[in-house]
Amino acid sequence: MKFTINRLRFLKVLSTVNVAIGQKSPTPAFLNFKIEISNNGLIVTGSDNDITIESSLPISLGDEKIILDYIDGSALISAKYLLEIIRRLDSDEVTIEVIDNVIVQISDNKSHFQLNAMRSEEYPDLDLSILGEEIVFSTDDFKKIVSQTAFAASTREVRPILTAINFKSSNGNAEFVATDSYRLAKKLYRIDNLNNFETNIPVKVLNEVSKLNEEDDITIHISANKVVFEFGNTKVFSRLINGDFPKTSRMIPSTYPFVLQVNSNRFIDAMQRVSLLAIERERIVKLSLDNDLVEISSKSEQIGSANEKIEQFQYEGGRVEISFNVDYVIDAIKASQSEDVILSFAGEMNAFRVTSPVDDSLIQIITPVRSYY
Amino acid sequence: MKFTINRLRFLKVLSTVNVAIGQKSPTPAFLNFKIEISNNGLIVTGSDNDITIESSLPISLGDEKIILDYIDGSALISAKYLLEIIRRLDSDEVTIEVIDNVIVQISDNKSHFQLNAMRSEEYPDLDLSILGEEIVFSTDDFKKIVSQTAFAASTREVRPILTAINFKSSNGNAEFVATDSYRLAKKLYRIDNLNNFETNIPVKVLNEVSKLNEEDDITIHISANKVVFEFGNTKVFSRLINGDFPKTSRMIPSTYPFVLQVNSNRFIDAMQRVSLLAIERERIVKLSLDNDLVEISSKSEQIGSANEKIEQFQYEGGRVEISFNVDYVIDAIKASQSEDVILSFAGEMNAFRVTSPVDDSLIQIITPVRSYY
Repeated sequence: MKFTINRLRFLKVLSTVNVAIGQKSPTPAFLNFKIEISNNGLIVTGSDNDITIESSLPISLGDEKIILDYIDGSALISAKYLLEIIRRLDSDEVTIEVIDNVIVQISDNKSHFQLNAMRSEEYPDLDLSILGEEIVFSTDDFKKIVSQTAFAASTREVRPILTAINFKSSNGNAEFVATDSYRLAKKLYRIDNLNNFETNIPVKVLNEVSKLNEEDDITIHISANKVVFEFGNTKVFSRLINGDFPKTSRMIPSTYPFVLQVNSNRFIDAMQRVSLLAIERERIVKLSLDNDLVEISSKSEQIGSANEKIEQFQYEGGRVEISFNVDYVIDAIKASQSEDVILSFAGEMNAFRVTSPVDDSLIQIITPVRSYY
Repeated sequence: MKFTINRLRFLKVLSTVNVAIGQKSPTPAFLNFKIEISNNGLIVTGSDNDITIESSLPISLGDEKIILDYIDGSALISAKYLLEIIRRLDSDEVTIEVIDNVIVQISDNKSHFQLNAMRSEEYPDLDLSILGEEIVFSTDDFKKIVSQTAFAASTREVRPILTAINFKSSNGNAEFVATDSYRLAKKLYRIDNLNNFETNIPVKVLNEVSKLNEEDDITIHISANKVVFEFGNTKVFSRLINGDFPKTSRMIPSTYPFVLQVNSNRFIDAMQRVSLLAIERERIVKLSLDNDLVEISSKSEQIGSANEKIEQFQYEGGRVEISFNVDYVIDAIKASQSEDVILSFAGEMNAFRVTSPVDDSLIQIITPVRSYY
């Protein structure tokens, strides 16, 4: 294997694929990029067995020659060192050459690196087939769906199913739901695929794909065992999470006698100030509502107390007090991406709802906590 | 005690004083700001017993009223909470009021905080007298002296004297020396004070003062037990480090048969590239010099090897090879703040010198390491 390649384009491909590669692995081959060159161009693959990324570059793109002087072949090259070397070189082009199968030479006009390499036959077999339901999203919509739901998933592996986003669709009406069992975010979205299906996609891969994708569109393929994200010259393969996603509909109250509408940013600022004294009490603040008063307060025996009145609000309902984890409410308000936000309460110890007055595609539910003062 | 104060000016003073206050302390009073208000204005003090900072604000500054409606008094208020509260409020002015000696109320138009406080009598007695040798520096010169020497001091407490910068002066010829025993930076500087003195100032306080000071000048007072830095309305007091600073003159060779001059940035870039493969060998690279060749190389059994030729250089001397910790040499070249740099070698296992061709006030010495290949 030998090729000379545009350095910055090569760096972009390596950086993308590197997202799948871990710092450690029980399988040493997984610490490498698998690099293949042929008439079809360059293919770079990386994997940690859960997520696999494959990204490619053609020999030329229009008039631009991307790859020069190539000899077909493949090799496994240390991801950590190859990425750092390609990043640090300052030439426009770099030459990669395998010398007697176990050494790869990376060089430009002045720098020469020789890395110990492995044969590509030592790379584990990966199932990189593409099949199952196909759904196309605009990248903007995809990123919005992920940003409005992913934060509500669990980050703990105790119940793995809660580290997934549940994606189900029927007749084109898709639903994305994430919950850590204390809060829930549910996004409704219309898709072109009219089939019925349901799957649990790891939040981790959704966040990574959302960060990586800079194309206009993204295509998702869902089969029984895996999900594939396809954008530009890149494919991201991920396992799914097994198990039944909890029936979240019973977390959602049906009627809300107490309804507050406030400016999102001013309400967040006030909660952040009041919660300064709530640090040692698990970030819990109390919201006191009445027809002419909206007040946020916190209290800590050791530190002191804080309270702030909200000056502008619309409120319907009687007197009620609700205590909650301030970060859950701030996350929910930010996710609504809306100038004003509506908080709807069913009672002091019932779950409450956060919605936008101008967009009914996102419903968020938060469980309150018992108030101690 | 009661006062209403311009919030941003108060925040600046608190942020400055907070630099002296630790996260933990065996003396609970040291986790507080000591705040005093009188006709003379506001004085805020913070300390961790090693470093003490006192910063003040006048009642008014020209036409600007900084402090309004004040009642004389003092209190100890939690540094962590007061600083965060003052930072997060969004009003122009904030009112601080002590209520029955043990509670302090912080409020603006809409937010109200009550913090548990302590009486100022519970603050330890600190010696805040100013005496000893007085030296005035322009702030630019002071920051340059610190940035050119402090990095060479030790960060380990095993030999406390090496965590100091040795500052000695005789007849106006001042010398600042820092060493971690593997490298040394010595800065020569002319001061107005013609007395003879020598002191060991902790690097930590020099770095903090260098960051804090935004005035044009800084005055340093050195006595037997402490150093005081005075700039604007702020005074920083620090203990000195006891013990004899090592006689560093014997670390410095007298003749250098091998002299290399190179472009600073290009030489740093080349060393950083080559050292990518030296990570597991304590960042050691080898410099090979001959009349027509300057080459940097590194080698690791497990990873591979790297080498790069320097294209433009001036060299006098014969063939020689020197191995060194690349970070020490990069630090030294950066500290020289010079487009080109001169590396002068006395032999393969002798300490070598890094200097600037245009500024002879800074001399840096680095110990090589034994080469293994």
